[in-house]
Amino acid sequence: MRFDETYAGNVFIKSHPTYEDAKAVLYGMPMDWTVSYRPGSRFAPARIREVSIGLEEYSFYLDRHLEDVKVFDAGDIPLPFGNPGKSLEEIKSFVRQVVADGKVPVGMGGEHLVSLPVMEAVYEKYPDMAVIHFDAHTDLRTDYEGEQYSHATPIRKIADQIGPHNVYSFGIRSGLKEELEWAKENGMHISLFEVLEPLKKVLPTLAGRPVYVTIDIDVLDPAHAPGTGTVDAGGITSKELLASIHAIAGSDVNVVGFDLVEVCPVYDHSEMTANAAAKFLREMMLGWIK
Amino acid sequence: MRFDETYAGNVFIKSHPTYEDAKAVLYGMPMDWTVSYRPGSRFAPARIREVSIGLEEYSFYLDRHLEDVKVFDAGDIPLPFGNPGKSLEEIKSFVRQVVADGKVPVGMGGEHLVSLPVMEAVYEKYPDMAVIHFDAHTDLRTDYEGEQYSHATPIRKIADQIGPHNVYSFGIRSGLKEELEWAKENGMHISLFEVLEPLKKVLPTLAGRPVYVTIDIDVLDPAHAPGTGTVDAGGITSKELLASIHAIAGSDVNVVGFDLVEVCPVYDHSEMTANAAAKFLREMMLGWIK
Amino acid sequence: MRFDETYAGNVFIKSHPTYEDAKAVLYGMPMDWTVSYRPGSRFAPARIREVSIGLEEYSFYLDRHLEDVKVFDAGDIPLPFGNPGKSLEEIKSFVRQVVADGKVPVGMGGEHLVSLPVMEAVYEKYPDMAVIHFDAHTDLRTDYEGEQYSHATPIRKIADQIGPHNVYSFGIRSGLKEELEWAKENGMHISLFEVLEPLKKVLPTLAGRPVYVTIDIDVLDPAHAPGTGTVDAGGITSKELLASIHAIAGSDVNVVGFDLVEVCPVYDHSEMTANAAAKFLREMMLGWIK
Amino acid sequence: MRFDETYAGNVFIKSHPTYEDAKAVLYGMPMDWTVSYRPGSRFAPARIREVSIGLEEYSFYLDRHLEDVKVFDAGDIPLPFGNPGKSLEEIKSFVRQVVADGKVPVGMGGEHLVSLPVMEAVYEKYPDMAVIHFDAHTDLRTDYEGEQYSHATPIRKIADQIGPHNVYSFGIRSGLKEELEWAKENGMHISLFEVLEPLKKVLPTLAGRPVYVTIDIDVLDPAHAPGTGTVDAGGITSKELLASIHAIAGSDVNVVGFDLVEVCPVYDHSEMTANAAAKFLREMMLGWIK
Amino acid sequence: MRFDETYAGNVFIKSHPTYEDAKAVLYGMPMDWTVSYRPGSRFAPARIREVSIGLEEYSFYLDRHLEDVKVFDAGDIPLPFGNPGKSLEEIKSFVRQVVADGKVPVGMGGEHLVSLPVMEAVYEKYPDMAVIHFDAHTDLRTDYEGEQYSHATPIRKIADQIGPHNVYSFGIRSGLKEELEWAKENGMHISLFEVLEPLKKVLPTLAGRPVYVTIDIDVLDPAHAPGTGTVDAGGITSKELLASIHAIAGSDVNVVGFDLVEVCPVYDHSEMTANAAAKFLREMMLGWIK
Amino acid sequence: MRFDETYAGNVFIKSHPTYEDAKAVLYGMPMDWTVSYRPGSRFAPARIREVSIGLEEYSFYLDRHLEDVKVFDAGDIPLPFGNPGKSLEEIKSFVRQVVADGKVPVGMGGEHLVSLPVMEAVYEKYPDMAVIHFDAHTDLRTDYEGEQYSHATPIRKIADQIGPHNVYSFGIRSGLKEELEWAKENGMHISLFEVLEPLKKVLPTLAGRPVYVTIDIDVLDPAHAPGTGTVDAGGITSKELLASIHAIAGSDVNVVGFDLVEVCPVYDHSEMTANAAAKFLREMMLGWIK
Repeated sequence: MRFDETYAGNVFIKSHPTYEDAKAVLYGMPMDWTVSYRPGSRFAPARIREVSIGLEEYSFYLDRHLEDVKVFDAGDIPLPFGNPGKSLEEIKSFVRQVVADGKVPVGMGGEHLVSLPVMEAVYEKYPDMAVIHFDAHTDLRTDYEGEQYSHATPIRKIADQIGPHNVYSFGIRSGLKEELEWAKENGMHISLFEVLEPLKKVLPTLAGRPVYVTIDIDVLDPAHAPGTGTVDAGGITSKELLASIHAIAGSDVNVVGFDLVEVCPVYDHSEMTANAAAKFLREMMLGWIK
Repeated sequence: MRFDETYAGNVFIKSHPTYEDAKAVLYGMPMDWTVSYRPGSRFAPARIREVSIGLEEYSFYLDRHLEDVKVFDAGDIPLPFGNPGKSLEEIKSFVRQVVADGKVPVGMGGEHLVSLPVMEAVYEKYPDMAVIHFDAHTDLRTDYEGEQYSHATPIRKIADQIGPHNVYSFGIRSGLKEELEWAKENGMHISLFEVLEPLKKVLPTLAGRPVYVTIDIDVLDPAHAPGTGTVDAGGITSKELLASIHAIAGSDVNVVGFDLVEVCPVYDHSEMTANAAAKFLREMMLGWIK
Repeated sequence: MRFDETYAGNVFIKSHPTYEDAKAVLYGMPMDWTVSYRPGSRFAPARIREVSIGLEEYSFYLDRHLEDVKVFDAGDIPLPFGNPGKSLEEIKSFVRQVVADGKVPVGMGGEHLVSLPVMEAVYEKYPDMAVIHFDAHTDLRTDYEGEQYSHATPIRKIADQIGPHNVYSFGIRSGLKEELEWAKENGMHISLFEVLEPLKKVLPTLAGRPVYVTIDIDVLDPAHAPGTGTVDAGGITSKELLASIHAIAGSDVNVVGFDLVEVCPVYDHSEMTANAAAKFLREMMLGWIK
Repeated sequence: MRFDETYAGNVFIKSHPTYEDAKAVLYGMPMDWTVSYRPGSRFAPARIREVSIGLEEYSFYLDRHLEDVKVFDAGDIPLPFGNPGKSLEEIKSFVRQVVADGKVPVGMGGEHLVSLPVMEAVYEKYPDMAVIHFDAHTDLRTDYEGEQYSHATPIRKIADQIGPHNVYSFGIRSGLKEELEWAKENGMHISLFEVLEPLKKVLPTLAGRPVYVTIDIDVLDPAHAPGTGTVDAGGITSKELLASIHAIAGSDVNVVGFDLVEVCPVYDHSEMTANAAAKFLREMMLGWIK
Repeated sequence: MRFDETYAGNVFIKSHPTYEDAKAVLYGMPMDWTVSYRPGSRFAPARIREVSIGLEEYSFYLDRHLEDVKVFDAGDIPLPFGNPGKSLEEIKSFVRQVVADGKVPVGMGGEHLVSLPVMEAVYEKYPDMAVIHFDAHTDLRTDYEGEQYSHATPIRKIADQIGPHNVYSFGIRSGLKEELEWAKENGMHISLFEVLEPLKKVLPTLAGRPVYVTIDIDVLDPAHAPGTGTVDAGGITSKELLASIHAIAGSDVNVVGFDLVEVCPVYDHSEMTANAAAKFLREMMLGWIK
Repeated sequence: MRFDETYAGNVFIKSHPTYEDAKAVLYGMPMDWTVSYRPGSRFAPARIREVSIGLEEYSFYLDRHLEDVKVFDAGDIPLPFGNPGKSLEEIKSFVRQVVADGKVPVGMGGEHLVSLPVMEAVYEKYPDMAVIHFDAHTDLRTDYEGEQYSHATPIRKIADQIGPHNVYSFGIRSGLKEELEWAKENGMHISLFEVLEPLKKVLPTLAGRPVYVTIDIDVLDPAHAPGTGTVDAGGITSKELLASIHAIAGSDVNVVGFDLVEVCPVYDHSEMTANAAAKFLREMMLGWIK
């Protein structure tokens, strides 16, 4: 009854009402201040929640209902505008608590750099963690025009911590020659252009391992995700991404955290990107949270 | 602290946390199913809340802060799609309770028809109520192509109940010849094209009276409010509407309820209409809630 | 010569000039008042006609010209805003006459609920009629939040009349668990996710049968049809839909009526959805009207 | 009844059904091939007709109804793409007939060059014709980068024929120094920046004269008409343009033809420009056709 | 250092600084005045350059860097608005010089007609030249509504000069029956609907031949290229176009010139079409300029 | 001739070809990483240059031509993404050189924080400098949520350096109560809501003084400038801003530098904001550079 409780507006569809008994925690990381091209992903978490009302709560793909996964929507983490360093600290601190409480962290970017402190916090608990990474871009630079903290560096930063051989990138189609060479020389897995087929080969090798999955929406072709910072023609379809999510769901990896980043609503008048992001998140929640 | 309470996302900026000690209650009425031209105002309440974060909480016009007015945001009233009759009942029932609890109802449309049950509920408590109405359109039809409940009829319906001489319309620039004649013959006040100057003359005559104010955003020129169902060139500016709001604030009328309707976000990529609506609502709250 | 006849503006490209000797009749059903998410499909028929001028009148796929199929464009059926019941009656009455005159009804929505009275009118003439249904959504609810007439119910309503075993749905990827179970228990055909391959298997079983075909444009992936009320990632491509249309054209079913619904132009600045709809309609006319 | 007559879709609201007894003839001139900046005005006539359904047929400003003025909508004049010379011939030939039949020509552009052949055709019948011209731009070039027929030349071309002292331009705020000097040296009237006040002074001097009025929508500030080829800040408001139209209606000039040009729909997602154009045309028809 | 040189703004990413030692010359042809449907491609060259800054300079597909191909960006060829004849002369004269200087011409349209004078100029140097043509439309008309120079005629005009058997069209899905028949009767190659597979069969037959490649962006499905004049559902994906570009790169043909035409930015708010065009141009440069 | 010189694309219309003999230098500051609401102003300089081609080079307001003012367009200052501190240093260093060379700096933002280092660099040369500031927002915070460098602080930072009594703000309509109080207590001039009339009173008091003028485009009403980060209803018109620019031009102040900031193109599909910015810059150049 509306009169005797706080209005809980604009939460992700069918999110669980309380933190305590939730299995997972959804949170927004509305930061876009290090992007080199088109900013605006700060508005993604709010828009993804808003359009989630157009979704069914049940999945025909997985025969499961959102009620079964108990995801608490914690809202957006407050982040200081224009200060990447402090922003990353805030995120790390928040996620560290979520993980300590035994819950699965589910993040919505924001730019890709927000995934770095999340992965670091999860890695503190799971030292044998591997990373599965879907993206159009390598994100393997040590710096971007001198900046250590940049949307072009998060995968390199985490690879330096957990070891490049524990990082598996898929769908990559853009980057520097030097990034690709570094990856090859250091035993990191990179599948160029393709996602589903190479993923199916990798998954059995990760059976039983704790895995963090980070998805940059631009792994999709711009036809399927026009609302992102850097559109890059030649990506995969929504169908392929759904199949890849379901492949992970059907595998023996232990997903200990995941995120979806780089949705940039202002470039997509149709809102198809935010809608797709909401659906992908639903499928990831339904398939990966046991 | 986010971990031990429900996330209260997407509420109007600085809204009061609890219903009990609030002076006023803000609510959305996401209905647009009787509009004859461009639908979409159902999304206005959510969007107005979302963009309200770009507003200051303090007004340079009124030297007052939103903390001073204690408005509880009750969210949107759930309404059955495509069923005007039941929708109006739901609204009336909700507002009746708000008024019974001694709070000022503050509504966000939705189409203009949603104002009708609100005015009816307020009228039950204040039988000497007058209505101040800002609009491009008369909304004085008895029916629209046979339909009693239509976005073209609410002012007529309320005039039939409270008496046409208690209704004061301003800024009107579109309608039927018959509507204008009916208004004149029945002692209703209609100011064509202008708002501020005639309003200043009317306000003293309403001193001490309980007044409900309903603002259709299309009283503004489309330059100032492109995001509305029926744009009609030749309206007033945002400055003039602000001045009119402040004129009411400075008068001796007793505002017992108010609403802002017909924002239609999808037609305004810049979001200037929703932003303007949020500002008008802030000024109305700060100026009218004593 | 323009001076001595009524201007026939904005008709579908190369439509036949007279009703009497037409083989088929094209009409718009500009209704969107029961949709639960994004309204606006009322403007689809006008926009589809407008963009059809960018199409060739001849098809490379079917080696046939629009002159050969004699489709009279009857304009839009006038429908009372906000009144689903009366609207459906108007549509049914119109189509009943078209069918009585021995012509094939070709409808443009509007929301999907408009297909229901059309199918009912056609069923009156063809009691052994089957329905082929392309859609992202099941549309099998008995009601939507209490409303019998809703864009979520038309397939259920017609299935209840003609028998669920006479309804064949393809491309479905969203709905309630209960809807799917009802379909299975009652012998209705539902192909999840896929269209072309299962359709090819079904068509021979319908040889010689009168068939009504209803296509919700959201069976397409949002990449191919961003301009629709409920975008749902993971749909089929335009190529696949064209191939499915041509599969029906090459089969032995007897298409006795068809429609294309749920185009919502305001969400598609590029107008690709309306353009695609015009092309699909051309191919349906060329392939299905003998 | 739709079955026994041609569907007359997308005509201007309440247009007269037959040419013979019409007082005036409305026609589109969908040409934009000589514009130097943003093309797209070819789609204006269709869009203005389409949005005119959102208008009332009666005017509160003039207390007159469209039924009273009997304007036949003749559709668009077919024009050969990319060939200005032939296009102008087609327009001139069409308008010559309209004028010969004693009807008032009412044109919708297209780019401003389309006004030239119309004015020439009207001038053949009214050798003492004056031209009233509302525009942001002088349009007084003899050529544009070598081209005689250009959207930058129509006022100069007509001035050369009817005499510069018979041309009255208002609202001008952009052009070459040479154009302004030519106008001054040759006795042409140019009011920079302002419209209503100088117009009120000019109108009495034209009492009894046949006058052709040509309005480039960019005389408005871009706030009021974003959908035009060349937006130029600092123009007049819709209110001022309405007042100017009404000033002409209330004067003693004899309006023998008029047009509204340079609406470019694709740059205005809100459709406010086309809506405004429809309203201006309604007021011009109601005020100027006796 | 910015202070002692001219600012070279908005050139294609990593273009070569001087003409003299460049291997290839990039130029824009901002003409759209003969298009029959949606104009606006005149703005494509500027927008493609602008968005190219979002691209990497290195290709993961071809393992090559833009520094290796030395393409000088000569800016846009100035063209007289609305005069197709003179415009084509200007283009031909410019390209003739580029070819005479031993450089590869790389063009950006503009409408497809701009390719005609380019192909003519290249043909003067390479009399055994073949043309590879990717397009949704045949472009084989002799005239369009009487106009010789039209965006619907360039392939026919060049076929008449170099012989239809030297023209290879792929991806065609729209045109007149007569165009298709003419092509068949005159030995021209047309692959309907498909590009990559038939191209792979044709390329070996052209080994060693000088080839001009002209790509109309509308060969892509509108999902991948919404920003074009005439969207036509059922086209190929960006992945398929990239693979086709790479197939040519891996073949033994000698690409002596190429262009990409018909990008129309205003219809694509996401800018994905211009971004895709920039990537295709990068791949064409990296793969085809030896 | 294009063949023997570097292509100078996308410079502001009629900019001077060389730095050495230029009177003024135009430069972009594409930074938006501290904005608290909608980012995207980094793209403003490129877009303003691009649309400037739609402008005349001559002004009817000032009877002066851009050739007379010799403004060299130096392009954009390269700035490190996401690093406000370094970005401000780069800007300061650049402008210091421009000022040292005796030229007037003319800046295009970017967010408003970019004005701070410019004003600091100019102040080094003109210690008796005053600042004229047009804005909707006070920008007088000492920090924004803890950040010293924020788009909400530049006016406070410069006031702290040159003295609050040397700062004159106009058109302010949004901010904190504390900001307004600080201004009043410290002798800073703030005109709420209005620009032209209070400016006319201030200008004579600044006669002979070196003045830096900084204009935040959001001083305009959103109707006139929808493309900005924070739209705030109730601002001034383009006409009023033009008149204010001309008032400064006609006064005896010595404008030693100026900028225009906060244009955010992605929120304005019509491009009216960038077009207006280009026109304002033209008028500022023509009126203020002697």
